[in-house]
Amino acid sequence: MIVVMEHKASQELVDAVTVRLKQLGFDNHLSVGVERTIIGAIGEKRPEYIEQLAAMPGVEKIVPILKPFKLAGREFHSEPSQVRVGDVIIGGEEIVVMAGPCAVESEEQLLETAREVKKNGAHILRGGAFKPRTSPYSFQGLEEDGLRILAAARRETGLPVVTEIVNPRDVELVAQYADMLQVGARNMQNFTLLREVGKCQKPVLLKRGLAATVEEWLMAAEYIISSGNDNVVLCERGIRTYETGTRNTLDLSAVPAIKHYSHLPIIVDPSHGTGRWRYVLPMARAAIAAGADGLMIEVHCRPEEALSDGAQSLTPMNFQQLMEETKVLAQAIGRKIGSLTVV
Amino acid sequence: MIVVMEHKASQELVDAVTVRLKQLGFDNHLSVGVERTIIGAIGEKRPEYIEQLAAMPGVEKIVPILKPFKLAGREFHSEPSQVRVGDVIIGGEEIVVMAGPCAVESEEQLLETAREVKKNGAHILRGGAFKPRTSPYSFQGLEEDGLRILAAARRETGLPVVTEIVNPRDVELVAQYADMLQVGARNMQNFTLLREVGKCQKPVLLKRGLAATVEEWLMAAEYIISSGNDNVVLCERGIRTYETGTRNTLDLSAVPAIKHYSHLPIIVDPSHGTGRWRYVLPMARAAIAAGADGLMIEVHCRPEEALSDGAQSLTPMNFQQLMEETKVLAQAIGRKIGSLTVV
Amino acid sequence: MIVVMEHKASQELVDAVTVRLKQLGFDNHLSVGVERTIIGAIGEKRPEYIEQLAAMPGVEKIVPILKPFKLAGREFHSEPSQVRVGDVIIGGEEIVVMAGPCAVESEEQLLETAREVKKNGAHILRGGAFKPRTSPYSFQGLEEDGLRILAAARRETGLPVVTEIVNPRDVELVAQYADMLQVGARNMQNFTLLREVGKCQKPVLLKRGLAATVEEWLMAAEYIISSGNDNVVLCERGIRTYETGTRNTLDLSAVPAIKHYSHLPIIVDPSHGTGRWRYVLPMARAAIAAGADGLMIEVHCRPEEALSDGAQSLTPMNFQQLMEETKVLAQAIGRKIGSLTVV
Amino acid sequence: MIVVMEHKASQELVDAVTVRLKQLGFDNHLSVGVERTIIGAIGEKRPEYIEQLAAMPGVEKIVPILKPFKLAGREFHSEPSQVRVGDVIIGGEEIVVMAGPCAVESEEQLLETAREVKKNGAHILRGGAFKPRTSPYSFQGLEEDGLRILAAARRETGLPVVTEIVNPRDVELVAQYADMLQVGARNMQNFTLLREVGKCQKPVLLKRGLAATVEEWLMAAEYIISSGNDNVVLCERGIRTYETGTRNTLDLSAVPAIKHYSHLPIIVDPSHGTGRWRYVLPMARAAIAAGADGLMIEVHCRPEEALSDGAQSLTPMNFQQLMEETKVLAQAIGRKIGSLTVV
Repeated sequence: MIVVMEHKASQELVDAVTVRLKQLGFDNHLSVGVERTIIGAIGEKRPEYIEQLAAMPGVEKIVPILKPFKLAGREFHSEPSQVRVGDVIIGGEEIVVMAGPCAVESEEQLLETAREVKKNGAHILRGGAFKPRTSPYSFQGLEEDGLRILAAARRETGLPVVTEIVNPRDVELVAQYADMLQVGARNMQNFTLLREVGKCQKPVLLKRGLAATVEEWLMAAEYIISSGNDNVVLCERGIRTYETGTRNTLDLSAVPAIKHYSHLPIIVDPSHGTGRWRYVLPMARAAIAAGADGLMIEVHCRPEEALSDGAQSLTPMNFQQLMEETKVLAQAIGRKIGSLTVV
Repeated sequence: MIVVMEHKASQELVDAVTVRLKQLGFDNHLSVGVERTIIGAIGEKRPEYIEQLAAMPGVEKIVPILKPFKLAGREFHSEPSQVRVGDVIIGGEEIVVMAGPCAVESEEQLLETAREVKKNGAHILRGGAFKPRTSPYSFQGLEEDGLRILAAARRETGLPVVTEIVNPRDVELVAQYADMLQVGARNMQNFTLLREVGKCQKPVLLKRGLAATVEEWLMAAEYIISSGNDNVVLCERGIRTYETGTRNTLDLSAVPAIKHYSHLPIIVDPSHGTGRWRYVLPMARAAIAAGADGLMIEVHCRPEEALSDGAQSLTPMNFQQLMEETKVLAQAIGRKIGSLTVV
Repeated sequence: MIVVMEHKASQELVDAVTVRLKQLGFDNHLSVGVERTIIGAIGEKRPEYIEQLAAMPGVEKIVPILKPFKLAGREFHSEPSQVRVGDVIIGGEEIVVMAGPCAVESEEQLLETAREVKKNGAHILRGGAFKPRTSPYSFQGLEEDGLRILAAARRETGLPVVTEIVNPRDVELVAQYADMLQVGARNMQNFTLLREVGKCQKPVLLKRGLAATVEEWLMAAEYIISSGNDNVVLCERGIRTYETGTRNTLDLSAVPAIKHYSHLPIIVDPSHGTGRWRYVLPMARAAIAAGADGLMIEVHCRPEEALSDGAQSLTPMNFQQLMEETKVLAQAIGRKIGSLTVV
Repeated sequence: MIVVMEHKASQELVDAVTVRLKQLGFDNHLSVGVERTIIGAIGEKRPEYIEQLAAMPGVEKIVPILKPFKLAGREFHSEPSQVRVGDVIIGGEEIVVMAGPCAVESEEQLLETAREVKKNGAHILRGGAFKPRTSPYSFQGLEEDGLRILAAARRETGLPVVTEIVNPRDVELVAQYADMLQVGARNMQNFTLLREVGKCQKPVLLKRGLAATVEEWLMAAEYIISSGNDNVVLCERGIRTYETGTRNTLDLSAVPAIKHYSHLPIIVDPSHGTGRWRYVLPMARAAIAAGADGLMIEVHCRPEEALSDGAQSLTPMNFQQLMEETKVLAQAIGRKIGSLTVV
């Protein structure tokens, strides 16, 4: 790290910092400029040291140099990781499509949708049994009944299932039914939950928090991996900005940024990312062109009756168009979508 | 709610929406303009209806009219609420100061700080036993040992204790030791946790999420109140913006906004709000002038050795100055701080 | 527009609003709900009426219904526009690539780069002669000398030239040399400048402001068109968010949003949008997949000697790769790049 | 500055950077860590060097150390500046209140308001003759007629006048009539305008841009000062964030931040900062408590007829209350408002 001293910080203050750095086990390199002294500190670094040093008299600021993530980072794991969900590989040549309704509402609704997305070439079925909702008066999900319905849909279609987990206590329960556990945007820094999903071996889909930086997102992945589970897939789903024309601002630059800094696969959710079904198809295409390893798409047979997120759900017909267009696009960049024959 | 139809939406599409509105129990008022038809829908409203209608063909957008919060709102509860923590009343004439270290690090550290903040007129002792940290490698708190130390400090100083809870499972445990449960910014939409603290009767300090609107924050309070606990105090602690000169952007307009829409008390945390100890004093003064019911201030006897948030912690001497300056200010606006005689 | 009255607003206050609405020429539709009265107001609307009504006692808020843009909007101009720059058509089947250095630094530098981008299939040459820079101590551009160099490069390569204009006084000067006038992000709401470029007939490239909504951006276009110049092309170049890992956050959803609301062509500048050359190529591909009509790319033969924006400039070799990859991608979505034979 | 090399950057790449640094006139201090090499570069720094070095192969990033502002900064001008407008001193003991309508609409309107604000103790009269408006169809101001009306109001009330300038060409014209030139938020980085107001000697009120950091704001002041005019007063007026409950987010931490980094006086505009008249009074109090040197307040005798910003304008009665409350508050922090006797 670099310790930047204040303008005209006295020699005593500079000395106090260098003494402290030595106590903490750092090698120091002092650079005395005309206007300011800066101290380069090399060595093992505990996160709290940064704040302690920042609190010393005469210190203007601390500039960290090393990235704080190790296990999620690319520096010591240069090859891209692949994560297996059932028979599906995420992070390989094939672009993986997870599709289904926002919420599991009933067995009929889920099965009907599951058949449609399967027919059109989706690889994984999504559907929420536990729904985190802004209002306590909104539909909160069918809970364990929803999990059972998801398992039934897997039996019928053969598609592995991804579903959200919101309570650390439910890891074992959800893991019984689902093939992949989703940690939602609002829980990206629910560290208790991150550690719990880190203790099981089910693959985890970690959505980016509404206001999380790429670095904080990788630190959330670091929580999971350092707890013992390295089957982590990241999902960009839009960040919160001043723009109100879309529900969120889909930050597709996160795709090359994650590829640059991390070995983890990354998929994109243009449904939450835009909040408007009209924009889902172009942004799905864009996600693939940016290098994403997969898509997560909300599909509902009758969006106007959906209990959650109707405005951003595709009909099966629109989903079919999405699969056809992204298939061509994937080929153009040397990847593929849908190894199954699409009818 | 108002349903805005698209430009040139056909009569059939308009009819379909009005039929659907009637099915859902709304009274309709149709306004046919030259360029657009809008439909005013009056009646009971379930949150999912908005999204369902937004998904209908020919619908441009839905404009909700009523505020979604009922129990936290001022419309049906026009008098300001007061919340009691031990013998301290929050939301009355007296401005309440919660002070102490970011994290409980040891018995000596906490007791030393507790004595200092008590001596200077603080009303409630703060200190974290469970610390949600961005990095899994940072100090995560002393957990139950930290709770015991807090209880010991209360015994010695008589100050009630507020501490953060991060795991829904720990409500009973933390409630045994603490007088007030804090829900941190990263957990503001951890709905499982909100419901759990809503089921006990301990007062809850609900911090605003990093990227939460005032409306979402009140909906989080609604979760707690609708679960049975109406002892909720809000805490503004800065939001995330593009400005990097401060750790967060302290949104003091939230104080009059909350006073306008809600009956709940609101306090301000300028330590997290700015992240820099130099700005804590002026922003504490500003918070009181804006109408806040209290302050939450990080104090550490040796910030340069703090295991968390040293850069934003006040020394006891700076805290003494804060108490003196805010006391004068509180009087100027007809309130008071520190009924105890300050030495 | 919709006038939403406050909870329990008295009959007198409601009457005062309806009287005022009639005075202002609106037809009123009153909807009296149990909790709130809302008034639908239909008719011609001047922007100031919204604020006046919002200031009346008893009014909670005004909800505008109609989009404020007319000439830039799609409602009365449903066909996509095409804008001609020299012999190049923007908004047609062909995706148009504008490339060149951030700033014109010397005749040698510009000509060398111009030859490279021409060789690789760029359609328009970019280069700044007047540079708006955050610091007064940064290189501010060669001004008229820079314009002369641009014109020389056009003579040699045949590429039309786009360059930024920063002073309303310079419209005539810049129009003498350039084929397209660029209004930069920092000037998107420099209304004096917008009106001046609206009075000439040169095509205008209007970059999105750093913190502009899509609606404000279209209103800026409305200034230009309503001044008499409908040759406007929009350019998404990233918005300012809390994320610091990229220079800006490239908001590609703006592409389908603009296509939905407006008939104007839109291009994307991934160089400024990301600020990092490594991310330019994937985001250029994504822009095309999202439906953009063109790209603006910074190219410099020796980025490490650039007087501006070196970190986000491509070398000619990287630019060649970009052209090759985007060509394949454009074909996959039924468009094309580079009708010229690429060597 | 600090040059951070990439993980495992080769010795050749490190050498190339150090050679280049020497060419550019820097002294180098090399720190070779286990994971990364960093190079401290000391010496005179041109802004473009940062970008050039960032573009070199093997360079991860550049960390600037020195603040880029010199003339606006506190390091070489440690005493607070005072700026004189007519007989009013901004930056002294007295807190200065600028008040008046958003726009000059007519002689009657302005004079009536001017008398009211004068009677209640305002020091400077504000009013817009040139109005930058989001929509070309909104009222754009009375232009030179408005300036004449402002001058007439000054003759009658004795209050100096501040008014906005939007066109660099108009500096001489506006300076003939006004005592202080306002550069609005949308023009904070209109560098042509900044240089023009820097060439005259009238005091300048520089509003913070909608999405400007404190550092960029001080760089805008640097443009004015380095052009020859050091009579600059800063005005915080809210920044753009995701929160839509207020028009902008008033960033009062900017007050202590500016006081920390700069010698320039700073005032606060809670009218634009909140956009809602109800919040203006508490935020005006908060601004003073945070240490602001003055306030800018919109006052209109009939807000419901205002041609601009009615929703955020105070009536004279509300303004009187503001003056009374802030007077008490100012005394409480050792300053004063209104040396004139308030009736």
